[in-house]
Amino acid sequence: MSGSIYGNLFRISSWGESHGKGIGVVVDGCPAGLSIDEAIIQTFLDRRKPGQTKYSTPRVESDKVEILSGTFENLTTGTPISMVVMNQSQRSSDYSDIASYYRPGHADYTYDEKYGFRDYRGGGRSSGRETIARVAAGAIASSILKELGISVFAYTKSIGNITINESKANLDDRMKSPFYMPDLEASLKAEDFLQEQMLKKDSVGGIIECIVTGMPVGVGEPNFDKLDANLAKAVMSIGSVKGIEFGSGFESANSTGSINNDNFRYVNGILTKDTNHSGGILGGLSDGSDIVLRAAIKPTPSIASTQETVNKDNENISINIKGRHDPIIVPRAVVVVESMVAITLVDMLFMSMTSRMDNVKEFFKK
Amino acid sequence: MSGSIYGNLFRISSWGESHGKGIGVVVDGCPAGLSIDEAIIQTFLDRRKPGQTKYSTPRVESDKVEILSGTFENLTTGTPISMVVMNQSQRSSDYSDIASYYRPGHADYTYDEKYGFRDYRGGGRSSGRETIARVAAGAIASSILKELGISVFAYTKSIGNITINESKANLDDRMKSPFYMPDLEASLKAEDFLQEQMLKKDSVGGIIECIVTGMPVGVGEPNFDKLDANLAKAVMSIGSVKGIEFGSGFESANSTGSINNDNFRYVNGILTKDTNHSGGILGGLSDGSDIVLRAAIKPTPSIASTQETVNKDNENISINIKGRHDPIIVPRAVVVVESMVAITLVDMLFMSMTSRMDNVKEFFKK
Amino acid sequence: MSGSIYGNLFRISSWGESHGKGIGVVVDGCPAGLSIDEAIIQTFLDRRKPGQTKYSTPRVESDKVEILSGTFENLTTGTPISMVVMNQSQRSSDYSDIASYYRPGHADYTYDEKYGFRDYRGGGRSSGRETIARVAAGAIASSILKELGISVFAYTKSIGNITINESKANLDDRMKSPFYMPDLEASLKAEDFLQEQMLKKDSVGGIIECIVTGMPVGVGEPNFDKLDANLAKAVMSIGSVKGIEFGSGFESANSTGSINNDNFRYVNGILTKDTNHSGGILGGLSDGSDIVLRAAIKPTPSIASTQETVNKDNENISINIKGRHDPIIVPRAVVVVESMVAITLVDMLFMSMTSRMDNVKEFFKK
Amino acid sequence: MSGSIYGNLFRISSWGESHGKGIGVVVDGCPAGLSIDEAIIQTFLDRRKPGQTKYSTPRVESDKVEILSGTFENLTTGTPISMVVMNQSQRSSDYSDIASYYRPGHADYTYDEKYGFRDYRGGGRSSGRETIARVAAGAIASSILKELGISVFAYTKSIGNITINESKANLDDRMKSPFYMPDLEASLKAEDFLQEQMLKKDSVGGIIECIVTGMPVGVGEPNFDKLDANLAKAVMSIGSVKGIEFGSGFESANSTGSINNDNFRYVNGILTKDTNHSGGILGGLSDGSDIVLRAAIKPTPSIASTQETVNKDNENISINIKGRHDPIIVPRAVVVVESMVAITLVDMLFMSMTSRMDNVKEFFKK
Repeated sequence: MSGSIYGNLFRISSWGESHGKGIGVVVDGCPAGLSIDEAIIQTFLDRRKPGQTKYSTPRVESDKVEILSGTFENLTTGTPISMVVMNQSQRSSDYSDIASYYRPGHADYTYDEKYGFRDYRGGGRSSGRETIARVAAGAIASSILKELGISVFAYTKSIGNITINESKANLDDRMKSPFYMPDLEASLKAEDFLQEQMLKKDSVGGIIECIVTGMPVGVGEPNFDKLDANLAKAVMSIGSVKGIEFGSGFESANSTGSINNDNFRYVNGILTKDTNHSGGILGGLSDGSDIVLRAAIKPTPSIASTQETVNKDNENISINIKGRHDPIIVPRAVVVVESMVAITLVDMLFMSMTSRMDNVKEFFKK
Repeated sequence: MSGSIYGNLFRISSWGESHGKGIGVVVDGCPAGLSIDEAIIQTFLDRRKPGQTKYSTPRVESDKVEILSGTFENLTTGTPISMVVMNQSQRSSDYSDIASYYRPGHADYTYDEKYGFRDYRGGGRSSGRETIARVAAGAIASSILKELGISVFAYTKSIGNITINESKANLDDRMKSPFYMPDLEASLKAEDFLQEQMLKKDSVGGIIECIVTGMPVGVGEPNFDKLDANLAKAVMSIGSVKGIEFGSGFESANSTGSINNDNFRYVNGILTKDTNHSGGILGGLSDGSDIVLRAAIKPTPSIASTQETVNKDNENISINIKGRHDPIIVPRAVVVVESMVAITLVDMLFMSMTSRMDNVKEFFKK
Repeated sequence: MSGSIYGNLFRISSWGESHGKGIGVVVDGCPAGLSIDEAIIQTFLDRRKPGQTKYSTPRVESDKVEILSGTFENLTTGTPISMVVMNQSQRSSDYSDIASYYRPGHADYTYDEKYGFRDYRGGGRSSGRETIARVAAGAIASSILKELGISVFAYTKSIGNITINESKANLDDRMKSPFYMPDLEASLKAEDFLQEQMLKKDSVGGIIECIVTGMPVGVGEPNFDKLDANLAKAVMSIGSVKGIEFGSGFESANSTGSINNDNFRYVNGILTKDTNHSGGILGGLSDGSDIVLRAAIKPTPSIASTQETVNKDNENISINIKGRHDPIIVPRAVVVVESMVAITLVDMLFMSMTSRMDNVKEFFKK
Repeated sequence: MSGSIYGNLFRISSWGESHGKGIGVVVDGCPAGLSIDEAIIQTFLDRRKPGQTKYSTPRVESDKVEILSGTFENLTTGTPISMVVMNQSQRSSDYSDIASYYRPGHADYTYDEKYGFRDYRGGGRSSGRETIARVAAGAIASSILKELGISVFAYTKSIGNITINESKANLDDRMKSPFYMPDLEASLKAEDFLQEQMLKKDSVGGIIECIVTGMPVGVGEPNFDKLDANLAKAVMSIGSVKGIEFGSGFESANSTGSINNDNFRYVNGILTKDTNHSGGILGGLSDGSDIVLRAAIKPTPSIASTQETVNKDNENISINIKGRHDPIIVPRAVVVVESMVAITLVDMLFMSMTSRMDNVKEFFKK
């Protein structure tokens, strides 16, 4: 089996390699009648495009998306939407070295063992470039969510040990930071820290936080397709993510029930919770408050300093990786997290439509 | 849709409520010819059975499993294995109160909104009692893994802020601790801490760590069914889990590439890694070293002290939850984590069998 | 993989063997709030129960169903509905012979090759007794369809070469015929024919026709999950079915476009078709007219007369099969066809709910 | 949900419309190390290309396939294989009329009802042109089967009431007939018959037979994913197929057990069957003999003669369909049937690999 298809009712089928002809995705299950065009998709793709700041790979790619099917006069038709981004900068020569050895922290070794050989050019299928497919599909999912009054909003919460100060954060500011950090003071500190690491030919990681507002109550399918379970899979499937938590997450393990329970309360006739330790999910179902999740991103494994590893002749060797790499992938991953969350939410909203017989009956009365 | 079926090739179909007739599971996709009997399954179930220590609910249940299909003369036949545990202690009367209000930290509110009403007795389907199905299926998955030389081993890493000291931990000791903590000194401290909280009518959480040894290299199906992605879903689907991380996890977000990368090295002709920050997974594929994951478990939401909440008449009220509850669910969840990991590993090992044409060809030559 | 789970949104998980402890099914995905009880399920099961007429096996089974989960006060709760029928008449001794040889027309040989051995008692998992699971689940699906104004109605169209005369058929009469044949004249002829074959220790086959009324237009998910494609799989998965056709079916291969096309016409403002060669399905979607399908059922492979076959010692032998067998399975299969059609229709109605963005939007406005 | 993804382990994701930018498919789950290139795929596509004979649509399309991903140096890499055929002849003007009315026998009405509107150009997604995706994927599946010694071979068995004479048929001759009929005498008669119908501006249907040789015993996953059940779905999902049967099919309904049962016999130490009424499938599993299935294809619904129908203003009207249409689609569908059969066989062969614990254990010993 190959795992390049994701979702149940809203499904995406992703393809493409870093230095192949292109990257693409087929979205199967988008309802008919949604306004969509290449400009909308492009807005999302531009947020992950390389070369936007000095902190990302200098590889030049316009990453222009083309819609090949599934729309008619800028409306979705209910049939599969095929989107493609052709690769332009295929400087494969940079990568001839890595054919013969295994880069630490990369998938070179595991791919070779699994498949018998690998397309080594730029990491092939295991390259972060595959996230183009996720973002293009995420743009469509986000458009559906927008119609339903739901928004997904992610930003960089920390880089290394520099964390945003919640009281100083202004979510509108995230676009002003090269790191999508909504606290511009923290963002400046992070720039200093990153430049320091770049001088050392090193790389850094960070944490992305994602907030979903406007979710109806009761989305999630217990006991295995719980909302948090499926979101965890979606986000963990992004390269370099090493952990995920919801609400108080790992901190709740060190709390007590009297503190960690979110009391319910009616305020002006509206059901609310005094706190949101649950991160918007109770029993695997959305509880109507904001969904809050955080993903831990490891430092970019491609670093320019010398590393110890092995080659395919079973020798221990020292290497210096050439090529064009990001000293940090956190900022470019922000829109990828948003995309995977949006895709999963659409899928699970659709799944939830058959929870109640009265709703089903009313639906088919039309 | 309802999400009570899990897996692709090795699938489990779970059913049952806390105070219904019983809890059961159908395992679909177990290969023929595996030795299995009720005694093996029972060993696993006994580890999650209530009433084993003074730190678990006093509800008395023998939790005896019966195999209804799929075996013949103690060998699996390749057909679905149906297992059932009948409920004995259905003191529903304890739960008549909770029909009318929403317990903080529980699924009462979200279930009512999703389904229009709920089986409120003991939490119904959202009760931790549903994990019986996971553990019974996990016992079968573990038997398959054993045949393949793979073992899954979980234990309590921390309770509240009391964490095991790795240098003092002896994994063989975990069964001697009422908490499955392999550091008996830490375990004693945790007992003190827990008793203190129990006096306050409060509850606590903790962290479970799980280690998988013996995994072949290359298991995992990129880019969406990565091994860590599917394990994350599996573990997050367990009630009360609020976070999961692999290897260095959230710490890696605060590391640098030069530290976080695990260098490869040949030692006596064997490929090894100097460190295991990756937690045994690179590019979503097992890398041959131990798989290491941690799950954060929130404090039991059912506490005996007074809490503020709302009732179904839209009133703000104070409640005191009756019934028999665990002041901590971490110890009983250890075998549940093992089970979900084992089930997922079997599923993904099976998926990986078609990765290479030469292997497929050889398989069908037989 | 094992294929005992069927469906996408409305899923059934079937288990059990002919002479094991029982047969059961878990229905995952039934909406909450549907009225259901054991009496309703029993009505369906009684239609396939053995021993109803002299033309079915004399095996005595009460086939009493028990609901183990998923309902509360006779309403479905949206959680998995587990149903079980315990076996009573386990005269395994009848079957000791067949352990050593392969019955012609049966799955003995193929099961042995696939699984390495088999539960030979009464055919084990390959017995027609597994259809109990289909019918119990079908009863629930039929209850959902009833709420939506859709009915599924099957009957025996022919036995051997005796076919009902459409002009004489009265659908209300089917219950008066031991064969569920709605033309009682044809039914009498079929009785004569069958008795003749029974004297020869032989068996016969026949054709079941199934009609669905009340389907909304547009159900079906092209291009692979077309309504007819999924119905074909559902019905072909029933043991002994060797062919399926829709509308004019195989006859349409010998027709011309001018005859086979169904003209559309407005009659009193209602869109109708002059004919129904399409069998109610156009382009894989329901077209609003009755869905009409037919399944060809082979003669029961278990016959009492002497047959040539092989044993497990690789010898050619002659056998006389003992045991209690149906000389025809067509009548008992009628409710099984209805069940598989009903289950598939519910699944596909649910899938169709996200076809249009405006409908989705309106749904979530509630 | 949209149903444009097919398969479990070997999955295809199809996209594209008749008059959109192109048609494509992503194949997910092809093992690594298979030799494949565009020339191999093209051979299959050329067999369904229009304009090969005077009996197919005069639309001119070169139907050149391009592989966009998933291969490296002409070997599959185990990652998704994306293939695309760009459309060239987009004479949409031909189709402006049909926007306003519903062609009899077509999906115009059902698509409009399902999706709210439709891409009417050439039938959009419901066009037979979508089978390009099936055939491109089928070429890859056939290459896998070839490696395993399995071949899939289809031909036209009948056109209208002209059926090949088995005794005169020579399978090698099928390529010499414009209809892929292996009896050239019947083929000539069919030409006469078709020309006669073409003069009447009418169309005809026929029957395609498909034979699979070399299948191992025991492929198929009871009780729902039986080999015949999944093949039935695969073939029924092809546009215009109205029925499918295996082995003696509908004739077996009019047979007796003593005739219809295939006796087993050892001949020179090899297990054989005296007959093949089962069509190579017993109990839903391949039985080692040839798999034989037949599909009934309806006459092309697009005919040039005047037809009665309705328009979107709810009026009864007469129409004359313009555009370029096949008077018979049977010959071009032959390779489509082969493709869907091949894809399904690969999927089910892969599924069958975990049937036995001893095989699984041996597999992972490597």
